[in-house]
Formats: sequence, C-alpha cells, structure tokens
Amino acid sequence: MVEERGNMKSESVALLPVSTECERVCVFGTGDIGRSLGLRLIQAGYSVIFGSRQPQTCNFLPNGAQVLGHVEAAQTAHLIFVAVQREHYDFLVPLANQLEGKVLVDLSNNLKKNQYPEANAEYLQSLVPGAEVVKGFNTLSAWTLQNGPSDANRQVYICGDRLEAKQEVLAVATRMGFSALDQGSLSKSRDLEDFPLQLFPLWRLPMRIATGLTAALFFYLLIRDILHAYITQSKDISFRVMVSLANKVCPIVSLVMLALCYLPGVLASFLQLYRGTKYRPFPDWLDRWMLCRKQLGLLALGFAFLHVLYTVIMPIRYHVRFWATERTVALIRQNRTNEFSTSAAWHSDSYLSFGILGFGLYVLLGITSLPSVSNALSWREFSFVQSKLGHLTLLLCTIHTYLYGGIRFLNASMYKWYSPPGYMLSLVVPTVVLLLKLFLLTPCVDRTISRIRQGWERGVNKRKNKMIKTVV
Amino acid sequence: MVEERGNMKSESVALLPVSTECERVCVFGTGDIGRSLGLRLIQAGYSVIFGSRQPQTCNFLPNGAQVLGHVEAAQTAHLIFVAVQREHYDFLVPLANQLEGKVLVDLSNNLKKNQYPEANAEYLQSLVPGAEVVKGFNTLSAWTLQNGPSDANRQVYICGDRLEAKQEVLAVATRMGFSALDQGSLSKSRDLEDFPLQLFPLWRLPMRIATGLTAALFFYLLIRDILHAYITQSKDISFRVMVSLANKVCPIVSLVMLALCYLPGVLASFLQLYRGTKYRPFPDWLDRWMLCRKQLGLLALGFAFLHVLYTVIMPIRYHVRFWATERTVALIRQNRTNEFSTSAAWHSDSYLSFGILGFGLYVLLGITSLPSVSNALSWREFSFVQSKLGHLTLLLCTIHTYLYGGIRFLNASMYKWYSPPGYMLSLVVPTVVLLLKLFLLTPCVDRTISRIRQGWERGVNKRKNKMIKTVV
Amino acid sequence: MVEERGNMKSESVALLPVSTECERVCVFGTGDIGRSLGLRLIQAGYSVIFGSRQPQTCNFLPNGAQVLGHVEAAQTAHLIFVAVQREHYDFLVPLANQLEGKVLVDLSNNLKKNQYPEANAEYLQSLVPGAEVVKGFNTLSAWTLQNGPSDANRQVYICGDRLEAKQEVLAVATRMGFSALDQGSLSKSRDLEDFPLQLFPLWRLPMRIATGLTAALFFYLLIRDILHAYITQSKDISFRVMVSLANKVCPIVSLVMLALCYLPGVLASFLQLYRGTKYRPFPDWLDRWMLCRKQLGLLALGFAFLHVLYTVIMPIRYHVRFWATERTVALIRQNRTNEFSTSAAWHSDSYLSFGILGFGLYVLLGITSLPSVSNALSWREFSFVQSKLGHLTLLLCTIHTYLYGGIRFLNASMYKWYSPPGYMLSLVVPTVVLLLKLFLLTPCVDRTISRIRQGWERGVNKRKNKMIKTVV
Repeated sequence: MVEERGNMKSESVALLPVSTECERVCVFGTGDIGRSLGLRLIQAGYSVIFGSRQPQTCNFLPNGAQVLGHVEAAQTAHLIFVAVQREHYDFLVPLANQLEGKVLVDLSNNLKKNQYPEANAEYLQSLVPGAEVVKGFNTLSAWTLQNGPSDANRQVYICGDRLEAKQEVLAVATRMGFSALDQGSLSKSRDLEDFPLQLFPLWRLPMRIATGLTAALFFYLLIRDILHAYITQSKDISFRVMVSLANKVCPIVSLVMLALCYLPGVLASFLQLYRGTKYRPFPDWLDRWMLCRKQLGLLALGFAFLHVLYTVIMPIRYHVRFWATERTVALIRQNRTNEFSTSAAWHSDSYLSFGILGFGLYVLLGITSLPSVSNALSWREFSFVQSKLGHLTLLLCTIHTYLYGGIRFLNASMYKWYSPPGYMLSLVVPTVVLLLKLFLLTPCVDRTISRIRQGWERGVNKRKNKMIKTVV
Repeated sequence: MVEERGNMKSESVALLPVSTECERVCVFGTGDIGRSLGLRLIQAGYSVIFGSRQPQTCNFLPNGAQVLGHVEAAQTAHLIFVAVQREHYDFLVPLANQLEGKVLVDLSNNLKKNQYPEANAEYLQSLVPGAEVVKGFNTLSAWTLQNGPSDANRQVYICGDRLEAKQEVLAVATRMGFSALDQGSLSKSRDLEDFPLQLFPLWRLPMRIATGLTAALFFYLLIRDILHAYITQSKDISFRVMVSLANKVCPIVSLVMLALCYLPGVLASFLQLYRGTKYRPFPDWLDRWMLCRKQLGLLALGFAFLHVLYTVIMPIRYHVRFWATERTVALIRQNRTNEFSTSAAWHSDSYLSFGILGFGLYVLLGITSLPSVSNALSWREFSFVQSKLGHLTLLLCTIHTYLYGGIRFLNASMYKWYSPPGYMLSLVVPTVVLLLKLFLLTPCVDRTISRIRQGWERGVNKRKNKMIKTVV
Repeated sequence: MVEERGNMKSESVALLPVSTECERVCVFGTGDIGRSLGLRLIQAGYSVIFGSRQPQTCNFLPNGAQVLGHVEAAQTAHLIFVAVQREHYDFLVPLANQLEGKVLVDLSNNLKKNQYPEANAEYLQSLVPGAEVVKGFNTLSAWTLQNGPSDANRQVYICGDRLEAKQEVLAVATRMGFSALDQGSLSKSRDLEDFPLQLFPLWRLPMRIATGLTAALFFYLLIRDILHAYITQSKDISFRVMVSLANKVCPIVSLVMLALCYLPGVLASFLQLYRGTKYRPFPDWLDRWMLCRKQLGLLALGFAFLHVLYTVIMPIRYHVRFWATERTVALIRQNRTNEFSTSAAWHSDSYLSFGILGFGLYVLLGITSLPSVSNALSWREFSFVQSKLGHLTLLLCTIHTYLYGGIRFLNASMYKWYSPPGYMLSLVVPTVVLLLKLFLLTPCVDRTISRIRQGWERGVNKRKNKMIKTVV
C-alpha cells in the first residue's frame, strides 16, 4: 500500500509539470497590466515572482504570486516581463548584471504615435544591451489578460532579434492560451507599439468613401431639388432637407457602396483572366480595396437601414399627410374622378417588393458577417452566402431602383438644370458590376477562371505545370 | 554567477520543450494548405520540415521552416502531413522504405462527391501499406490554419485504423489549439472527405419545408384571391401578387414554421410520458427534426421580418392610397356620415399590438441564437429563453392571428369557392402545439415529466432504480 | 535502418506524453455528466477509467475508456472526478482506504438553492476526510463538456483547501482547454453550487428598473390620458391602451434607461474629480450600477425597437385612418382651406429625422455589444463606440424628444389635472446626464480627469507620486 501511494505521488508530479521549479517567470511592475499578466501566468501554471522597488508596499497582487526587490526577482527567472512605463526604464540600468542573458519582454505602449524618437523596446535594448529584448503582449488590454484569450483577442504579436528568445516567449504565450505571431526583428517594435493606437484601421477607407459620397450627393440634391425650386419658382421647400433629401442620399450611397463592395472581386477575376495565372500578386490598391469589402458592405447596410426607416415613416410626415388631404379635397372641389391604374399599382407594388426582398437579403448578409456567425460557416458556405447571395442582393436592389425610376427617365422635366435625378446616378456602378459579373458567368469564361483558380497557368508548358501541381 | 547562468540555461531548456529535437514534423506539399499548416505547426512550437520534389524552388514558406527533398524530409520525422492532391500520390510509392512505420496524415479533399471509387486516404494506404494512414484536418481551410482555431473552427475530425497513430495526430492537433474528434476507422474517410463539400446540411430540411409551404400557399392564394376575382367578377387584380399576396404568404409560413419548431419538443415529451422513461432513444425522424429546430425558427423569423416590412410599407402603396382617397370621396359625394366604432379601434389596435410584441420577442429569440450570445448563456438561461420565451412568442403570434381574423370566420363570403382564407390555415398547427403544451404544463403531468427527466423510470422496481441512480 | 526506427519510436513517445502511464484519471459516475467529462478528458489525451458499481452494465461510454469497479478504479489514478448525485455519496464511505490522499473533484449540483444544510463538496469532504476534495467543473453543462470550451464557456471555477490538489485540477482543466479560476477555500463551494441556479444575475437590476418604470408610467398615462377623458368628457378611448399608450411608455422608458446607462460613468468621473484620485474604490451601489450598464442599454434598445414598430404601424390603425378621413370630410363640408405650414413641416420632419438617426446609432451600439463583435474590437475602439457614440445617441434621442414636444409645453391644456405630459418626464434624467457630461468635457475639467485616470493624485507629494508611478 505504501509503495502504491509512492507511485501515486510520482504520478501526481508527472501530471503536474506546471509546478516544477524551472517554470518560473518574473514580472517587473505591479500596475494594472503587471497584475493582470501575473494572474494569467499563474492560471497557466507558472509560478510568478513580481519585482518591485518597494516589495513590502505592493497590494492587490494575484493570489499565489511572490514579490521581491528587482535584484532578487531578476535572479529567480530567465524570462522577465517588463510591465513598466518607458519613462521609468532607467531603474533597469543598475540591474544590468542580473539581466545579462535574460529575456526581457517589453509590454509598454505609448499615448500617441511618434511620442519618442525610437521604439520603447529598442530603447530598452540600448539600456540593457546584455539582455535579449522581445517586444510583445502590448496589444492586449489588462481586461483581456485577466479574463484570458477570446476568439478575437487570441493573437499576440512578438518581435525580437534572437530566435531562441522569441521561441521562449512564444511558448509562454501558447500556454497562456494565446496564439503568438512572430513579426520579425526588433526593428518592428515601432509597428507593434503603434498598433493599439489605431482606431478602426480597416474602416477608414470605407468611411471616407461613405462620407465623400454622402457630402457630394447632399450638395448635388440640395442644389437640384431645393435651390432649383427656390430660384425658379420661389418655393421654400427647405424642410425637405430633413427627410426627403436624406431619403434620397441614403439609398444612393447604399447602392453605390454595395456595388463597390463587389467590384474589386470582379476586377480581380478580370485581372487573373488577362494574366492567365493566379500566382502574380494583385496591385496594391486592389489588395487594399478587397481587404475592406466587408466594411464597405456593412456601411452600405447601415445606409439601407436608414433608407428603410426614412421610407416607412413617410405617411406620418405632416408634409405627406397635408398633400394627401389636399389631393382629395381638390378632386372633390373640381368634381373630377380618379381612375384606378393597374399599371401604376403594378409599378408601385413591384419596386416596393423588390426593395423589401433586397433589404431582407442585405440584412442576412450583415448577420452572416458577424464574427461568430461567419466562424460557424464552412468556407464553402461563407463563399456561397457572400458571393452568390451578395450578387443576388445587388441585383434585387438594382432592379428595385430601376423599377422605382420606371419610365420617368423619358420625361424631360426630370432633368432640372440639365442634371439627372439622383437615382440615375446610383445606377451606374451597380449596372457595370452586374454586366461584368454576367460576362464572367458565361460558361466558357467561367471555365477558364475555375481552371486558373485551381492553379492552371496559361502558356506554362505541360512539364513545368505538372511539377508545380505535384508540390502543391 | 557562472553556475547560476548555467542553471538558467537549463531552465530555459526545460521551459522550452517545444524546441527539442524530437518535436519535428514533416509536411509534404508546399501549396496553400501545406504552407498554412506549416505556419500553424511552427507557431505551436514544432520544428517543421517541408518535403518537396524541387526543394530549391520553393518560395513563400513560413519563417523557420526547412525544405528538403521528399526522401530526406521523410527521414527526419515520424509524423508526416500529406498536403498533396490525390492525383499526385504516386510520388509516394518510391518512398515506401522511408515511410515504413511512419504516420501519414491525409489532408486531401475532392472537388465533388464520389469523384473516385475509394476514399483518398484509403487509396493512400493502399499505395503505402507499410505506413499508418490517418485521415484528418481536411475540414479546415487554409485561412483557418493560418489564423488559428476559433470557436467554430476548433473541431478537427480524424479517423484511422491504428489507435497509436491517431493518438499522435490528436496530440499535435491539441497543441495547435484544435479539438480533435476521433471518428473511427479509416473506412470513415469517405465521410470526412465529403464533409467540406456539404452546404448547410442542417438547413436543408427547414429550407425544403419553407419552400414547400411557400409554394403551396402561393398557388392556393393565387387561385383563391386573384383567379377567383378574375373569373367571377372579371376584375384584374394581378398586381396584388407583388405585395398583398406576399404579405399573406409570409406570416402564414412564419407562424406554421414557428409552431413546427416547438412541435417536436412537445412530441418528445409525450413520447417520454407514454414510454415512462428517458432512456429509450427517440425515433430517427424525431431526432432529425429536433436537430433542425434552430434553423426552423430562424427561417420563421426571416418570414416574420418580411411580413413586418410588407406591412409597414402598406400606406405607401398606390393601391392603398387610391382606395383611401376613393372612400373619402364616396363618403362626401353620397353625403354619408362615418360613425367611429370603438370596437373596430380595439380590434385593429389589439392585433397590431400583439403582433408587435410577438415580433419583438421573435427578434430576441433570434439574437439569443447567435452563436456568441448563446455561448454566453448558462444552460438554464438558454433553456429559459428558448423554451419559455419561445412558447410565449408562439402564443403572442397565434393570438395576433386570431385577433386579426376576428369574427370574420362567421362570414360566409370569406369562403370563396368553399376554401378557407389563408390565415385560418395558419392557425391549425400553432393551436395544436399550444394545446398540447398546455396539457404538459398541468401540474400532475408536469411532475411526471420532471421525474422522468431526472432519471425516474415507470415500472422499474425500486432496487434496480436505485442502482441506476447511483451510477449516474 | 533498424536503429533509426528505434529512434523514431522514442521520438513518438516523446511526442506523445499524453499516453504515458501516469496521465490516468478516474471518473466515478457514468451518467450524462460523467460520460461527457470522460469524452473530453480522452480528447485532451488522458486515459480515463470509469468507476461504476456494476461495471459490466455500463453502456454508451466514450471510446477508449475503461470501466472498473469503484475499488479498482480508485486505485488506478490520483485524480478522481465524482460525477454522482449527492444523495448517493455514501457509496464512497467504504472506499475511504483507497481514497486516502487522492484528489476528489466534486462536480455535483443541486436542484435549488439551500437544498441541504452544507455544500455538497463539504459534505463529501466530511464523508472521506482522508481525501482532498476540490469543488469544480459544476458550472459546465454536459453539452459544453462534450463539445469542448467555447469563448463563453471557457471559465471553470474551482475551490478547495489544499493548493497542490487545486493545482492538479487546474492543470487538467487547462489541458482540456478550459481556463480555471481558483475561487479560494472549500468554504466557497456553496457559491459555486449556487452559480448554475442563477438566472441572468446581471439582468436582474435592469429588469426591475424597466418593470418599475413601465408600470409607473403605464398607470400615470392611463389616468392622465384615458381616465381624464372619460371623467371630464365621458369619452371612451380605452382602446388607446393597446397602441397609443404603449407607444408613449416605450420611448419614455427607453430614453430614461439610456440615460441611466450613462449616468454612473458621469457620477464616477465626478467622484474621482472630487477625491482627486482613482485609487479609492467606488461605493458599492455605484460599482453594481456600472456593472449592469450594458444590460440597461440593451433593455433600452428593446424599448426603442418597440417604439419604432408602434410608430411605423400608426397609419394602418383604424383610429388613425378614421380621423384622417374625418378631417378631410370636415374640411370640405365646412368649405375651409388648409394652409401649408412650412414650420409644421420642419417640425415634423426634424423630430422624425433625429429619431431615425438616434435609432440607427442605438442599433449600432447594440450590435457592438454582441460578444463576438465587442471581442473583435480593440479596447480603444470599444471605448470609442460605447462612450463617444453612446453619448451621441443619447444626445440625438434627447433632441428627438425635445423637438417632438416643441412649444407644446407653453400650452396650458397640456397639463391635464396639473400633470405634465409623459414626454416631459422622460427628459429630466437625459438632460441632467448631458449637462454633467458637457461640464466634464470642458477643457480644464477634462485635463484633470485625464491626469487622474493616468494615476496622478491630488495632494500626493512629488516623491511618493514618482515612486508609485515607477512600480506601475
């Protein structure tokens, strides 16, 4: 029995490599970030020693951690996290001896870009040349460190000059549940330090496009609809700015941006078709454009949503209710009869119905682009939704707009000051995209594209082609 | 000091088991999948050797990987990932000696089902009988491999004939952050290879039900509402197809499908009640039905959403505006007075209000079924929302429909060609579900169900019962 | 060659520490939880021995698991999961010898709070005093155990009296992919056992506020709008309860709750400003309030959504259509002329437009608070959306309400029975919040707040201050 328990004991040790002596890491700094990092390290099974100038005054440290002075702490571990603000790095200079050969992970961030001439991590390396500085973990908030990685906060970026040091940090990150990506040498620190200062980088281009389009259309329609009436008929219809104008700008911006969201994919296909290979990289502008398609689409959905709201509250507007009454009153006073027009009914019901179906699919696209939903889709399902349903949405919304216009384009009075009405402007890009897509879908073009996507290259002789395919 | 650093060194090694010699894996194939897999393996701490026919021409390989010829690469590792298309497997035949006893992981996929007589993995095994082939990882896209597992892309399925080989693959998958599921022997490869070719498998049955219901109702209402008017009164109201008809089909399909979403749960309770135990499996059709309840509910929500849109744009329709004016004109010309009917006001406001509340809950159910939201709920919270609030939604929507109908069912003119109006059809299934549920909620039935759910079995004698509960 | 294969063999073993003898765990209980836990353990690479009273009758066990009698099973492993209901714990008493020194993990839950005088884990410890009981894993459902951890189901809470025992459990949890949090000594078991019985704990306070506000406003408006008309003019407008009243209650509750969602943040800033430091904890009520801001905001969004629905169906209501006709008829019969009022058009269009924009942002806030979306945001992005856009939403909605009211507040007839109309009530809290926020945004106040947030303390002398910052 005793022997058996002895075995059990050794089993328990084997089961618990986490508590062995050597798995010790040191954290300099007992602020929010230091404490949160320490907590996460402990929960990943490391034993954590905090280094502090005044160890006896440190409170709120995570359960199970030890606090020592900087010198003593530095001696206990090979890996030291430096969770201290750059301004206080000078305390490390007298520790140079203890830090010789150690791996120092610089977690610091700045308050704004280009705050200092060199990156914090490079400054740290210059202060302690004997240590191996690795930049990393700075993109995580204290909150993420405390609560552990979640889907979107799983990436940790590191960079540094020595591979072994990076490997060591990487192993710790992996055990904490993060997924660390090596970004290269320490000269990349500046990029990593700028990262948390970014605000919606992928949304910037789409936001600029949306703002530009909205402003341009607003002034175009302001002049065409409101100033024109004021100047030629002295009518003050300025109140239309609030709803009528907004309800013209929103759908136009929405439709154009939806088309812009599918245009780069079509252009990319044409480029591949023209080059006869998928192995040459796209031009930079096309790459950037393709990367922000999701954001373009979501902004477009936002404008479509406003369009729907602006449309459904129309019957509540004083303006609309007033003229409805006026029309009835005029009909009676002038003793006219109104004839029901089946074609007008068809027209009104059709463009409304296409708009509703288009918006329904639009919302579906938006929902499937939620991270948790798109993660749940297989690649084939995602591409089905975003490509097939996406183009269908564009088609329905374009038909909605054509039907809305109807045969009005034949009417010369529509072209006030020789300018086309807004809805016509909105049709240019979608029509082009749909026609190009239609061309790509013709069987013989489609076949060529598919072969290119599977690795076929035009003009590559059979032997070489075979070799490339073999090593795929 | 020197000694201390020596210790430090050994510490570092202990901390870094990942870089030790034996943790080497080999990847055959340097295409998208091979490169992405290699990147993920390196980031999980493995050292990766790529095997290629022309090692010197391989570009874009992940940082830190080595490339060797196939023969040399095969000798470096016990575990070899084969990321090569099936058509090129024959290059493995001359390597048979080097592959003897190795574990080969087949990652390949096909372009369509039943492309080849036997599964790729079985074909691979037949080519290299001395190796131990494991099928796996083929359900992951290159994108997932590059970016690491996320909630929905965490599952990796493997199958193979030797347990040790599978264990080895499983350990690698786990360290890469995936969660591997053993699907059995190599004969299951066909299933795994078919998996990525599936398109929304769980949505298929609900989509068929929705399509079938929509088509049937469309023709029923087309005949009843539009053809009937054309034949009996020669009136052309075909324009109603676009909005009026759509706005009848949508709510009916939505309500029926919502009811169908709660019917299997009720049937399952009755079955358990009848059998007196929860330990006998449900019939296959009921299992399949229960598995697609979420999809049924979400499709129902889609139809409800369209119904709401079709309803709120009603006052904008030409048809509706025309007849509103006509009614006013007729009132005046005939010098009639309209009397305000409080009961009509109650009726109209009630069904609208119930509809709005029902739709509000409907949307709430939809939101809680988003993966990230339902993951955040405890099991008790999820079942509260989906069961309690779900049945409440069904109740509200059913009342909405009953109120909408009102006492019209007494009116013989409603039954054109002896057929009931659409809304009546929509009430059958929800009423049945609600009545059955009501029965299940009666105290004595509810108590029995609860006991069955806790493991009690009718007719099981006390001794045996106690034993079963003990081992639970 | 032979030697090489020998090396390979040892490689494989090194690569596969998971299958070594010592990584064995035992699970008592073969019910849903036991089987699911066993499956997860096997998939994490452990070898699992089930302990059962009647090992030969156990079915449905996960592939690769072994079943033994309790005595034999207990001897195989140092770590034993007890997945048995508390009522059957007595079977452990005769096993005391085998369990001596073992770690017993109690997974049990109860059906209601305070079902037993002491926590299950404490009861288990009292039955087997020689074992080391750790409470844990009880917050996971069988479903989560089968499918592995996902973002929201990654946390595992454990507590126990011996650190080593907890470390051992923690290591197993980590390898299963969970993130275990040590909650302290075994006396905390009661809390852990109560946890799964909670139902939306963070939603409780916001739900109470919403219910209270809704009820109070409902009765206030019932008396003011409906009873007043009935008593002073004998008019029965009770039907207004269904839509008109609901459409007054919803926007008021929504606006007040949105303001309540931003009030605690403003109060906290004032408190920090007054105290001159961020290092003193907030009062308890403020902490609790701040913790449920998200829930307050989401409930407010729900009410806003209902308000939008109630508003857009207005033109469909019998009541609204009737009076629209009546007004036209009266106009003609009395031969009056209606004058178009540009200011009325401005007024109606403005409040609608502000409402729409406010609701658009409201929905955006709601979407960004979905777990998967907010996880994808950096901390700076999240705070931009929730703070900047949040206050903008509050501003837009408050302007919407002010514009809706317009100059009606000058009209004495609005104050039926000396009580103000509902919309005025709704403006109090938002106005206060916005004014306080405006004060906080003035440059000099803003600067002080920023310094406090960065750790500056009023009245702390420079030396001490510097020290604190150093150790941050």
